[in-house]
Amino acid sequence: MIHSNISVLENGHIAFSNTDVVELANKFGTPLYLLDEKRFRENCKTYRNTVEKYFGSESIPLYASKALCCKEIYRIVSQEGLGTDVVSGGELYTALSVGFPSEKIYFHGNNKTEEEIIYGLNSNIGAFVVDNFEELAFINEQAGKLNKVQNILLRLSPGIDPHTHRAVVTGNVDSKFGVAIETGQAFKFVEKALECKNVNLEGIHCHIGSQIFDKYPFTDAASIMLDFASDIKNKLGFAFRKINLGGGIGVRYVENDPQMDIDSIMGEIKNELDKLVLERDLEQPIFLFEMGRFICADAGMTLYTVGSVKEIEGYKKYVCIDGGMPDNPRYALYGSKYTAYNATHGDREFDIVASIAGRCCESGDLIGEDMNLQRFDRGDIMAVAVTGAYNYSMSSNYNRIPKPAMVSVNNGEAKLIIKRQSYEDILANEI
Amino acid sequence: MIHSNISVLENGHIAFSNTDVVELANKFGTPLYLLDEKRFRENCKTYRNTVEKYFGSESIPLYASKALCCKEIYRIVSQEGLGTDVVSGGELYTALSVGFPSEKIYFHGNNKTEEEIIYGLNSNIGAFVVDNFEELAFINEQAGKLNKVQNILLRLSPGIDPHTHRAVVTGNVDSKFGVAIETGQAFKFVEKALECKNVNLEGIHCHIGSQIFDKYPFTDAASIMLDFASDIKNKLGFAFRKINLGGGIGVRYVENDPQMDIDSIMGEIKNELDKLVLERDLEQPIFLFEMGRFICADAGMTLYTVGSVKEIEGYKKYVCIDGGMPDNPRYALYGSKYTAYNATHGDREFDIVASIAGRCCESGDLIGEDMNLQRFDRGDIMAVAVTGAYNYSMSSNYNRIPKPAMVSVNNGEAKLIIKRQSYEDILANEI
Repeated sequence: MIHSNISVLENGHIAFSNTDVVELANKFGTPLYLLDEKRFRENCKTYRNTVEKYFGSESIPLYASKALCCKEIYRIVSQEGLGTDVVSGGELYTALSVGFPSEKIYFHGNNKTEEEIIYGLNSNIGAFVVDNFEELAFINEQAGKLNKVQNILLRLSPGIDPHTHRAVVTGNVDSKFGVAIETGQAFKFVEKALECKNVNLEGIHCHIGSQIFDKYPFTDAASIMLDFASDIKNKLGFAFRKINLGGGIGVRYVENDPQMDIDSIMGEIKNELDKLVLERDLEQPIFLFEMGRFICADAGMTLYTVGSVKEIEGYKKYVCIDGGMPDNPRYALYGSKYTAYNATHGDREFDIVASIAGRCCESGDLIGEDMNLQRFDRGDIMAVAVTGAYNYSMSSNYNRIPKPAMVSVNNGEAKLIIKRQSYEDILANEI
Repeated sequence: MIHSNISVLENGHIAFSNTDVVELANKFGTPLYLLDEKRFRENCKTYRNTVEKYFGSESIPLYASKALCCKEIYRIVSQEGLGTDVVSGGELYTALSVGFPSEKIYFHGNNKTEEEIIYGLNSNIGAFVVDNFEELAFINEQAGKLNKVQNILLRLSPGIDPHTHRAVVTGNVDSKFGVAIETGQAFKFVEKALECKNVNLEGIHCHIGSQIFDKYPFTDAASIMLDFASDIKNKLGFAFRKINLGGGIGVRYVENDPQMDIDSIMGEIKNELDKLVLERDLEQPIFLFEMGRFICADAGMTLYTVGSVKEIEGYKKYVCIDGGMPDNPRYALYGSKYTAYNATHGDREFDIVASIAGRCCESGDLIGEDMNLQRFDRGDIMAVAVTGAYNYSMSSNYNRIPKPAMVSVNNGEAKLIIKRQSYEDILANEI
C-alpha cells in the first residue's frame, strides 16, 4: 500500500484509516472524497513538533490551505495549533467562519483585489505577504485610513528552479509571483516598504515550487534570501525578523516516489541555515514554513464506481469511473500520477495494464494512463489514493457534474463534512 | 478586431454587441462573463439554415451544450428551434428546468450512471447515444421495466486523427469513447443492439475532435462510417436511418486562425457525403451534426480588472488580472491561445509583449504568454475575446474564488443571466 493508512480487510475490501471504504461508498454514494482525520492531525502534529524542535516556538508552522480548504479543515488546523495561509477573500472568509484566530492568518496572492485587502485589514490578520509595488501602496494607504500599522512580508523571487513540473515552479526569476532579487527590483521594493508609514516590514518570503524531494532547492533559495538580507542590512541598516521559505516538500503518489521524512529534511535544512546565517554575520531570523500538500495529501482518498471496462483489442484498455476531471483535474493539468485500488477486491493481483477514464465528454479526462492495476468489473468500487491535496480545492462542475461529498474517517468512525452538491445547487445562481 | 461583434467606441472603450464593456464592468463588477445574445442567436440561425439547406428538414441541428450551458442558453437554443446534446444528468436537469422539449434531447457520455439513464428514460428524451455494451444492456433492461422502447444511436470510434490538440481528439481507435470499428467490436455492438427488445436502433454516431479547419476529417470519418453501414446492411440486412457525425468545426481565437464559413464547409461536406452514399448504394440516411463551440465561442467575452503590471527587467512582463484559471482553465489545460484588448483604452497600439497572469497561487494560471498587447495600467479593464465556449462550463472555485456573473448583451441592452457567486455560496455545503 502506498501509505500506511490504507489496508486490505479480511473481506477483501480496502480500508482507509481502518474504515471499510466499500461500506462508505454504499452509505454515502460515489464519487466520494474521504479525509483521514487521524492522519491529517498526525501530519499537523509532526509538522508542528518538527518546526518547534528546529526553529523554536516563535516559528509558527503555517498550513497552506489552498491545497485543501473547507470549514472542517480550518477547525482541525486551528485545534492543532497551526497558523494558516490564505490566498483569497474566500479562504479568509471560510477560516473566519469557524473562528480561526485571525492573528495566525497570512494573506498571500499575486494579485489581491482591493476588496480583499480591505477585508484582510478589517479582519486584523497576522500579515499580508505583499506581492508587488501597487499592492504595497494600496495596503499602506488603506491601513492609514484605518489608523493602523499592518504587518507585512514581501514576496521575493529568488531565481531558483527546483526542477519540478513547470506549472508548479514559482521561484524562478521570470515567475509571476513577487519581485525579483536578481534584477535589483527587490531592493527597491524593500526601500519602498520602509518608507511606508502604515506597514511594519517583518520580513521576506519566497516559495520555490512543489513536489521537491531534496533539501537543496530550499537551502539554495535560503542562501539567496540571506545574501539579500545581508545586503539590506549593510546598505539600509535594516534586519528582517522573519524569513518565510514557503513549502513544497514532495509527497509520495506512486511506488517510485520517495517517502520524505519531515524530521530528517527539516533537520538538514536547519543545519544548513545555521551555517548560512553565521557566514553572513546576521542576527538569527525566525524561519517560517508553509506546508499544504504535505499535511493533507495522504489524508485523502477518492472513491468511484466502475461503470464499464473497455478493451479496445490490440490497442488499449479503459476502466471507466463515475468521476474524473471535475473532481480531480490533476492528470489533465499536469499529467500527475496516482495509485488506484480495486476497493471491492483489494486482494487481487496487480495484473492488468489499463487507463482510468473519467466520465466527462473530454479525452483528457483521465486519472492515469497505462497504469498497473487490479482487474475491475462493472459495479466495483475504485479507491484512488493520495487525493487530499488539490482535488476538492480544484474541483469544477464541468459537464454539470455535482461536486462529491466529503466524509472524514477516523479509526472506523465516519462523519459527513461536505454535503454532495445537488443539481439544484449547480444552477442556483442562474436566472 | 478578432470578430465583428467587437468594436472601439469614440470614448476609446471596447464595445461588445455595441455595448460599452467598461460601463458593464463598472455596473456588474469583474471578472464578468458576457454573452452576445444577438451573435449567439445568429450563429444558431446560420447553423439551422445551413443544416436544413444541405441535409433537409429531418436533420435536426443539435447544440452540444457542454460548451456553454445554463438556463438562459437552453431557453435561447429552444427558441431558435435547435435540439441539444446533454452529457450528464445535470445538463438534462438544466434543460428540462426551462422546458426544453425532451424529444429533441440526445443524451451522450462515455459512462452514464444508472441514475442518469433512469432519469433520461423517465424524461422521454429523444435518444441515448450509447457508448458501450454495459450501458446498452442497462438501458434495454430499464426500458423494459418501463414498458417502453427507447431510441438509441451507437457511439462508434472510426479511427480518425484530426491532427488537433491531443486532449480534444476523440475519434481515434484508442479513444475512451465508443466502440471501435477497426477491431470488429462495433459490428458486435450493432448485433447486440438489434437483439435488444426495448431499444430502437436509429443509427450510429461519431465525433472526431475539436478545432478542425478542414472538411477532410469529417468526410474521412463519414467514409468509414458509411463503409460500416454498408457492411451492416450486407451482412445483417439492417439500414441505419441516422448517421450523426458530431461536431468540431474550428473557431477563430487569434488572428492566425482562419474564419470558417459554415455554409461553405457544410456544402462541401454535403457533396462528399452524396458521393459516398451513392458509391455504396445505400438508402439516403439522415445526417446529424452537433455544434457547440461554433455556436457560442465568439458570443462570449470575459472582462477583468488589471491589478498590477509587472516588468521583470530583462526577463518578462506580466499584466495581472483579477480572474484567470478558475474562470478560464483553457491555457492551463491546453495552452489555448486568446486575443485580449485594453477595454478602457481600446484605441491604443498593440506595442507591448506581455503575459497575462491570473490571480491564483499557481504559476500555470495564465491567459497567455508573450502576447502582443496594448499597454495596461492598474485599474484598466481587460477584455478577453472568444470565451463563450468551455469557460463558464469549466469554471472552478480554485483558491475559493467565486464564479463570475454572466450578463447577456444585445445591441446596447444588458441583462444579468447568472448571478455572481458569493463566499457563502462556496461553502454552502460545508458542515
